[in-house]
Amino acid sequence: MAPMKPLLAITMGDPTGVGPETIAGAWSHESVHAACRAVVVGHAEVMRRAVQVMRQAVQVVEITSVGEVASGPHAMPCLTCCHENVLALPPAQADARGGAAAYDAVAAACRMALAGEVDGMVTAPLNKAALSAAGHAFPGHTELLASLCGADDVAMMLYLAPGHAVRGRVGLGVAHATLHVGMRTAIELLTSERIVTTARLAHQVTRGLLGAIAATEPPRIAVCALNPHAGEESLFGSEEERIIRPAVRRGIAEGLALTGPLPADSLMARAVAGEFDAVVAMYHDQGHIALKLIAMYQSVNITLGLPVIRTSVAHGTAFDLAWKGQARSDAMVEAVRVAASLVRCHDRLSWK
Amino acid sequence: MAPMKPLLAITMGDPTGVGPETIAGAWSHESVHAACRAVVVGHAEVMRRAVQVMRQAVQVVEITSVGEVASGPHAMPCLTCCHENVLALPPAQADARGGAAAYDAVAAACRMALAGEVDGMVTAPLNKAALSAAGHAFPGHTELLASLCGADDVAMMLYLAPGHAVRGRVGLGVAHATLHVGMRTAIELLTSERIVTTARLAHQVTRGLLGAIAATEPPRIAVCALNPHAGEESLFGSEEERIIRPAVRRGIAEGLALTGPLPADSLMARAVAGEFDAVVAMYHDQGHIALKLIAMYQSVNITLGLPVIRTSVAHGTAFDLAWKGQARSDAMVEAVRVAASLVRCHDRLSWK
Repeated sequence: MAPMKPLLAITMGDPTGVGPETIAGAWSHESVHAACRAVVVGHAEVMRRAVQVMRQAVQVVEITSVGEVASGPHAMPCLTCCHENVLALPPAQADARGGAAAYDAVAAACRMALAGEVDGMVTAPLNKAALSAAGHAFPGHTELLASLCGADDVAMMLYLAPGHAVRGRVGLGVAHATLHVGMRTAIELLTSERIVTTARLAHQVTRGLLGAIAATEPPRIAVCALNPHAGEESLFGSEEERIIRPAVRRGIAEGLALTGPLPADSLMARAVAGEFDAVVAMYHDQGHIALKLIAMYQSVNITLGLPVIRTSVAHGTAFDLAWKGQARSDAMVEAVRVAASLVRCHDRLSWK
Repeated sequence: MAPMKPLLAITMGDPTGVGPETIAGAWSHESVHAACRAVVVGHAEVMRRAVQVMRQAVQVVEITSVGEVASGPHAMPCLTCCHENVLALPPAQADARGGAAAYDAVAAACRMALAGEVDGMVTAPLNKAALSAAGHAFPGHTELLASLCGADDVAMMLYLAPGHAVRGRVGLGVAHATLHVGMRTAIELLTSERIVTTARLAHQVTRGLLGAIAATEPPRIAVCALNPHAGEESLFGSEEERIIRPAVRRGIAEGLALTGPLPADSLMARAVAGEFDAVVAMYHDQGHIALKLIAMYQSVNITLGLPVIRTSVAHGTAFDLAWKGQARSDAMVEAVRVAASLVRCHDRLSWK
């Protein structure tokens, strides 16, 4: 008998954004159903509307427990977990009710994942202003999930699977040592400890994805410099010598195959060409400029360090497009496929 | 009678790096000679050796004044302006003698351009450690040329001509508001004044390149945010509201078609797709990660704000490749072609 396909919970995201439509559109992709069984967590009526706006043939089936899941191209199981006041929301506006609904869906999916009722979770975009208006002041999903799971050492990885614009053996993952903070704060937050932790998490997920290859060829990980020209021998900043190089040395002493600190501009080009399996970026834009540029809709956000598997699309609520039936679904398809891949190698993901 | 082709001075760069070889290789490209007449400034014997290592058929012709220039695929006019101690230098090593030679070539070419003896200059890479060891402590060509010309408001633009990886009407230029400084210093140096100045220079060069189109459709210029998500409404830093947005408003009031501050990650993808003609980046890597990623060897460095036209390859001395006959010449070819284009529109370059 073939092993059971992974069961994934997909959160609806902010109901006024493109999230529900991206899920509705993704449902018609055969590769989604080939990779997993899925249940949508949010509100069944919102999903019905999204299916209609996207002119999809799938039927939304409201369920009350994941035991009832029978997902497939023609049936979209949906667990309603948020208040029905979301049905009165105007589209494409940050509203506390939308923020509360997005929060409730993430919290419910996270509980299900922690309880082992699902194998992993995929999240559609939320709106930070709406989330904050609902009383949940998190700068993003990553920080919200870290809080829900009580996880201290997490990192956000943007990941591009093989076969897209990268030539690496397992695609390319860029893990961020700092994330949703201003540049001044990012620089203050950079410590050797944080960089080693991020490198360790990047190593673990990449080793998982490499599978059997990892035994002979460990993940090759490049560490970005913070400053231009990697600090040009301390002429353009001292963080490379004070913080990043010691972190690289510690990581190597632990057995990680780290290279760096390298100037981020040429490093990103080398990584995309396949010279590295993963990159540790020092700040948000350092990784995001590169991956969004080469593959805006194929880059998947993976939260490293959580006790559950979680991926997400890398785009936002896109209010300019929301509820017009124009949302692209390829990012959601890719987020689902990557989550399913991670489930399949989950016994190798040692941070779990 | 056809108008005379532009006459360009090409500096040899650090004689121990790949500079001489990139020039030797570029000489065999028909497009170089179609675009300009050129004279190499450096040392004729170094150039002869580079031609030999690169197995080129061209003859190096030592001249003593630009009046004698008869450049073409089979003749490379060369002005010797540096000490002959460079002939004893080992390859691929930072050495004060190499730094002095690189400096002398830049200084000579700059004098020729200022005097109108040549129409513009193209520089091969120098090594900063060698330059500094020779007593010229400049962080890069840009700052050295600003000093030689007594120019206060200069900016470095990385430029990709149409037909490469960008879809814009005149390619894509990214001007940097700060450049060869550490990130901490870059943030301190960011002022509205500096951003407006950079935007103005980007506007001027792009208008020049646009030619007649600019009269009806002015250059569309996007201004990057400093912080992730453009500061996420001041949650991730205040520079967008305090510094960048006021600069954008001032630029618009002056008649520049500015948009921003926009999150740099998605902005770069939009600019490459052709939505903008130019971008103002806040720091070195913000622009360099994007352009080096999409076109490492076609990106050309243009110094904006000098009283002379100057372009350069965007790569360095590449000591790992130097004097092995393996240097790529496509970046040098492109730097020459772009310099020639700028000469042809130079009466429209109002910063001159």
